[in-house]
Amino acid sequence: MKVSSYKKENDITYSLGATVTMEYLNVRPDLVEGVIIHPRFDSSDTMSKINDICSSRGIAVEVSEKPFNILSKKGNCFVIGVIRKQKEEIGQGCHVVLVNPSDAGNMGTIIRTCAGFGITDIAVVPPAVDMYDPKTVRASMGARARVRMELFESFEEYEKRFPGNHIYPFMLDGSTLLQNTKIESPFSLVFGNEASGLPQMFQKKGHPIRIEHTNNIDSLNLPTAAGIAVFEATRSVFCS
Amino acid sequence: MKVSSYKKENDITYSLGATVTMEYLNVRPDLVEGVIIHPRFDSSDTMSKINDICSSRGIAVEVSEKPFNILSKKGNCFVIGVIRKQKEEIGQGCHVVLVNPSDAGNMGTIIRTCAGFGITDIAVVPPAVDMYDPKTVRASMGARARVRMELFESFEEYEKRFPGNHIYPFMLDGSTLLQNTKIESPFSLVFGNEASGLPQMFQKKGHPIRIEHTNNIDSLNLPTAAGIAVFEATRSVFCS
Repeated sequence: MKVSSYKKENDITYSLGATVTMEYLNVRPDLVEGVIIHPRFDSSDTMSKINDICSSRGIAVEVSEKPFNILSKKGNCFVIGVIRKQKEEIGQGCHVVLVNPSDAGNMGTIIRTCAGFGITDIAVVPPAVDMYDPKTVRASMGARARVRMELFESFEEYEKRFPGNHIYPFMLDGSTLLQNTKIESPFSLVFGNEASGLPQMFQKKGHPIRIEHTNNIDSLNLPTAAGIAVFEATRSVFCS
Repeated sequence: MKVSSYKKENDITYSLGATVTMEYLNVRPDLVEGVIIHPRFDSSDTMSKINDICSSRGIAVEVSEKPFNILSKKGNCFVIGVIRKQKEEIGQGCHVVLVNPSDAGNMGTIIRTCAGFGITDIAVVPPAVDMYDPKTVRASMGARARVRMELFESFEEYEKRFPGNHIYPFMLDGSTLLQNTKIESPFSLVFGNEASGLPQMFQKKGHPIRIEHTNNIDSLNLPTAAGIAVFEATRSVFCS
């Protein structure tokens, strides 16, 4: 298989690592175009699982070292999945909305949290980090295969598509405390950029929520804030 | 100032970045041995704040490029603080306890969360990533300056020092759900390793808690789980 360093404009992305690739093989084998194994990969158990799925699905498996030099500089990766990007469209229901997310690792961690609490639709408002970036996929631990993500032109475009959703922007100066807010379904939990948060115009959208913290920090880490919010919103029932 | 690449055994660590260094200068100027400014640093506002504190405290300030080549390969850092390590001892009260944490970025993120929710004492049980690593300090966004961290030989040694604390180990197979547990102060929220969690013997310590999630993920990201737990434990009152 020929691989080249990841580019946003290509229609291929990569799952780096055995765990992440196994998630794609288990959940979305239809998107896997091939699997590359490092010559020094030594887990025969995982290897036989990969071979089983790939042979039954007609997915090519190749042992080769070179792709790892191109795609994984850290050297702690022994399995690569070649993943076809597919246009995704989110459905009705509960959503997390990321406005201007700038870090692929953070986006991946939030995807993992969403999958963990039953939210499978994530809306993204640009400018935004690439939702197919191998770093995003890897930080999600493969949960990227389990969620649908859709890029909207603007938050207004998102709102138009989901007029029945209750909007909860998370802001440092949100008017109500998270623990005092009854979050109603279907909900949209909206988070801003790591450094700058949400633009002030979100004060006028739905019910702005504040996660109260001491003055000893400027803000919570974004995936931590999103984790707290998603846990609270879904704590009684997982959203369907 | 002479700097060398960070080593765990040295009695010096480094705060990489203006925000992180400002936290040390504001909160623990007694630990700052010097500040190094990149020749291309162009925030005159921050520069004058740094100069004010350093001149009143007799802290050396130096403009030099070379230390950045040694300490900050990413190139997005324009201020370095030279920080003296100090033996820290945690006090009575509420704690987070990290057992075998393996990632400096995760440790830093958890420190930031703790500072944000009023927990200023963190116990660490080895093997553990270095609590003074510049990566830990940086991921904390400088909150490292606001907490006390102490390395214990074992969890038993920790328990002996704080016999009055209520122990809550967070485990995938914890017996009670977080939302059904009344967390009593002074509490110890205990978290295990990123990959392997807490050893099974923690089932017999205090009140093991489970953060329920779907089967679509193996586990939550560690700082996300810790964030949810700390938020829940402190949601009514900040712990003092």
